[in-house]
Amino acid sequence: MAQHENRLLILSRDTPDYFELMRQADLPRLQIFLAETLEAASAHAAKCNILLGEPGLIAELLPHAAKIDWVQSTWAGVNPLLAPGLRRDYLLTGVKGLFGAQMAEYVFCYLLMYERRALARYQSQQTHQWDRRAFGRLREKTLGLLGVGSIGAEIARVGKCFGMRTLGFTRAREDCRHIDAYFHGDRLPEFLAAADYVVCSLPETRATQGLLDEKMLACLQPHALFVNIGRGAVVDEQALIAALQAGRLAGAVLDVFQQEPLPPESPLWDLPNVYITSHTAAISAPQDVAPIFIENYRRFVAGKPLKYVIDFARGY
Amino acid sequence: MAQHENRLLILSRDTPDYFELMRQADLPRLQIFLAETLEAASAHAAKCNILLGEPGLIAELLPHAAKIDWVQSTWAGVNPLLAPGLRRDYLLTGVKGLFGAQMAEYVFCYLLMYERRALARYQSQQTHQWDRRAFGRLREKTLGLLGVGSIGAEIARVGKCFGMRTLGFTRAREDCRHIDAYFHGDRLPEFLAAADYVVCSLPETRATQGLLDEKMLACLQPHALFVNIGRGAVVDEQALIAALQAGRLAGAVLDVFQQEPLPPESPLWDLPNVYITSHTAAISAPQDVAPIFIENYRRFVAGKPLKYVIDFARGY
Repeated sequence: MAQHENRLLILSRDTPDYFELMRQADLPRLQIFLAETLEAASAHAAKCNILLGEPGLIAELLPHAAKIDWVQSTWAGVNPLLAPGLRRDYLLTGVKGLFGAQMAEYVFCYLLMYERRALARYQSQQTHQWDRRAFGRLREKTLGLLGVGSIGAEIARVGKCFGMRTLGFTRAREDCRHIDAYFHGDRLPEFLAAADYVVCSLPETRATQGLLDEKMLACLQPHALFVNIGRGAVVDEQALIAALQAGRLAGAVLDVFQQEPLPPESPLWDLPNVYITSHTAAISAPQDVAPIFIENYRRFVAGKPLKYVIDFARGY
Repeated sequence: MAQHENRLLILSRDTPDYFELMRQADLPRLQIFLAETLEAASAHAAKCNILLGEPGLIAELLPHAAKIDWVQSTWAGVNPLLAPGLRRDYLLTGVKGLFGAQMAEYVFCYLLMYERRALARYQSQQTHQWDRRAFGRLREKTLGLLGVGSIGAEIARVGKCFGMRTLGFTRAREDCRHIDAYFHGDRLPEFLAAADYVVCSLPETRATQGLLDEKMLACLQPHALFVNIGRGAVVDEQALIAALQAGRLAGAVLDVFQQEPLPPESPLWDLPNVYITSHTAAISAPQDVAPIFIENYRRFVAGKPLKYVIDFARGY
């Protein structure tokens, strides 16, 4: 049990919110540091043993954090902290379970808009046209979850609620009861070919980088809709653009990209049936993240294992 | 048990589909009549004891149907058959359970689009703008079901799946386990005031006509979204327009209207946060309706009670 004083530095665009939530929690033996500038933050980092914040900001200060024991990321994706050459001699914890509900609302918003032809119908409304065009349904369609972590599992659960068939592609795990059939390893082409919608929630790891290349994208059905809420690097974006232009899939809902913000000259902006949502599928709200830090801090002080520890080698 | 030959006249825009589905079902002791013209239909109607089709078409032929025993409506709303002066000396059956899934997909499409600001984000996409505007959530919001029949119940079920609180306003029934709290009778104002979204699936009856008048609409919260998938006559449309124009509610998703098609000069078309969907929330597809007729026909031949019998007095 750690009896010494702990020193926390908060490094987030939402620092004032986090500070207020921490103060309210009245955590024992914790001194909290904030910084207005990066320079001030570096000075604080040198004496703090705990960092809480966004992975990109923390990665910059990591070389200065001589006494670091534990980093709590406020984001699910911790890639900046996994860059080659960065130290890994501390405990890194992430956040889980916060994004599932938001991601599910996002995914079903766009699947339903697509099936219901809601944009086209709204365009008819602009010219006061009574538009009785036909629509599609989710019910009895096949939803392929590429990645079945806490986010994929939540989307599968809502998919079952809408009467869909659910397929899951994972490395090996088969622990989500809302998946009707699992696929692993070299069965990715079969998985992709079987789905009406493919929803990718994969993190960026060495194993997932460029996983959806030209050959894999060619496995999708021509009526399939591809949704990426994972990481842009999982998809070969040029191959995706070519496949969309050639009509080898029906459309795409894209929240993440190889380069963000998506450059204004990207052809993706103007492709029909492509929806660009500017990395807004889910956000890390301080009121959701703070309770995770608070629980982990109590465990840290008590010498117990923390929740959501990230394995540097696997990357999640 | 009816041993005589039965004669069925099909009266639908989808007559060829129904005819084919009936032929495949190979129903015993059934002679099927179709008609290209209303005149031919009148002649057939005089000798048929069963009619299957759209209420509006059937209402026109009812005076000619001297031998009518049973009418199976292909639509959920049978109002044309309830008009004053029309005969009621036959068994009228409707369809149920077909629309719940479609209606739920429709409702959640528009609730999610609204919360996610999907139209505004799509407009940003047109000018290649990386749009990180904030969004709302369904989770923990309150969904008010005005009417909890098979459609309202299905919407409540999906609402619970999205982590919403569900309120139900019904005449007296409390038989849906997906409703957290029920309201009846003079508690309508309280029900309307408590909901973030009000979804009306009420049929048109004497009790529901004009139910949502100026006074009731004033009970809605200024941030509330009103969805009408029931019947246009349930709402005072002029009062709704005035309330929307005055910002007394945030928006409306309207599938049904006092007059359909909605006249091009209606102010509803151009109001912000109003979505006009031209009575497409759910359709009666022959492949969904035919099995109901087929099951009812087998019951009819066996002298058993039919399913979904409509009470002329109640209107549903």
